[in-house]
Amino acid sequence: MRRGETIAKPVYDHSVGIFREPVPFRSAPVLIIEGLHPLYTQKLRREIDLGIFVDPSRAVKRRWKIRRDCGDRGYEREAVMAEILAREPDYKLYVDVQKVYAEAVVKIDDTRLRASSILENPGERYSVRLIQEVLEAGPSAVDLTIDLSALFRLAEGEFSIAFQRDDYYGKRVSVLTVDGELHRSMVEGLEAKLQALAGSTGPICDRAEGDRVTSTGMAQLLLSWRLLEKLQFHLAKA
Amino acid sequence: MRRGETIAKPVYDHSVGIFREPVPFRSAPVLIIEGLHPLYTQKLRREIDLGIFVDPSRAVKRRWKIRRDCGDRGYEREAVMAEILAREPDYKLYVDVQKVYAEAVVKIDDTRLRASSILENPGERYSVRLIQEVLEAGPSAVDLTIDLSALFRLAEGEFSIAFQRDDYYGKRVSVLTVDGELHRSMVEGLEAKLQALAGSTGPICDRAEGDRVTSTGMAQLLLSWRLLEKLQFHLAKA
Repeated sequence: MRRGETIAKPVYDHSVGIFREPVPFRSAPVLIIEGLHPLYTQKLRREIDLGIFVDPSRAVKRRWKIRRDCGDRGYEREAVMAEILAREPDYKLYVDVQKVYAEAVVKIDDTRLRASSILENPGERYSVRLIQEVLEAGPSAVDLTIDLSALFRLAEGEFSIAFQRDDYYGKRVSVLTVDGELHRSMVEGLEAKLQALAGSTGPICDRAEGDRVTSTGMAQLLLSWRLLEKLQFHLAKA
Repeated sequence: MRRGETIAKPVYDHSVGIFREPVPFRSAPVLIIEGLHPLYTQKLRREIDLGIFVDPSRAVKRRWKIRRDCGDRGYEREAVMAEILAREPDYKLYVDVQKVYAEAVVKIDDTRLRASSILENPGERYSVRLIQEVLEAGPSAVDLTIDLSALFRLAEGEFSIAFQRDDYYGKRVSVLTVDGELHRSMVEGLEAKLQALAGSTGPICDRAEGDRVTSTGMAQLLLSWRLLEKLQFHLAKA
């Protein structure tokens, strides 16, 4: 696939637990591999240019799974919860450990801004922590702009942004934690840059009410940025 | 004094507990009144245009007092601590309540960024929370600019900025919490604006190593901004 060749992709049938006939899978300039174990073996890791590990907290993950399985799929809540809990040790042993090999980790937890406003419904808001291996040179300059005067007129949503450094399983990392919702004007510079890099005029990230950028949307923007800068670097080499 | 007249200022001698001869005190266009009870009576509050309440946490205040009294003044640590604890009920009853009447409250607590870096000495770093009554119109537009690319190269100090809304003892307020140290480039726009308003080229706030702005420095900047905007408003009326 890295050489641009079409492969015969194995197909696992979850409903009966066997492999079906393989299907042809055509390669592409950018391949996105989503799954539980893409960074598990050294052989796989060697082929991956940008490894991202998405890591919702146990509380958030349980809620997401219950919503999906009880809502969309119609299972009993108790049965779903028992299944979730039964799988957590294996998750820790065989999935979670791949964080060590990821260039970026996205931790998703419940918002911490909830306490302040008893009057408003916070909806689905998350505290998102983006842990990224430090870049030696790039990326190219982009500013995140906070309009202070709008803050003091309460024209903004509630948010928090925190930046820390850390050592994370053998890597020097930057840790950016975003919570709440950012005003569109804050990320306009970054979004315009990404649109230029991607040759697109469409939105790069999910939006909330009032065109605000959620914390998960902010992680989408920052990871797209990293991906596009890396892609540009590889294209320049090729 | 509001009429620009010189007054006879009473002088209380703390060492013996009596009033000495009053001294003449000349008025000025801007008067800064610092003390424990400037917002306590309605009569005083009517004369004050901008009331600021500085509110260090008990832990921070105890440390500051112990350092001052045991260091500079040479008292015993145990005696100082006993004195501090003996005064805390009166503080709560007769000082703390003035927050209700302040237009801005500056809460100072220990940094919450400390946990991440075991290798570095965090020094004197605070989490500063600035609670300000909402402005209907102003202040004029000023951006706080975060250079994202510098963050990911770790060229910045560690910091966090959070914005929330709240209702605070009868007032609609904005709550801005700043922790750690901000890069000079982040506040350049604001500082330039304040220098223009004040007709000064000197620094407006305290700086840390590397010309970084601390969280207390950030509160200085934002309160200076509020003060200067208010002053301009009063001068325009006069």
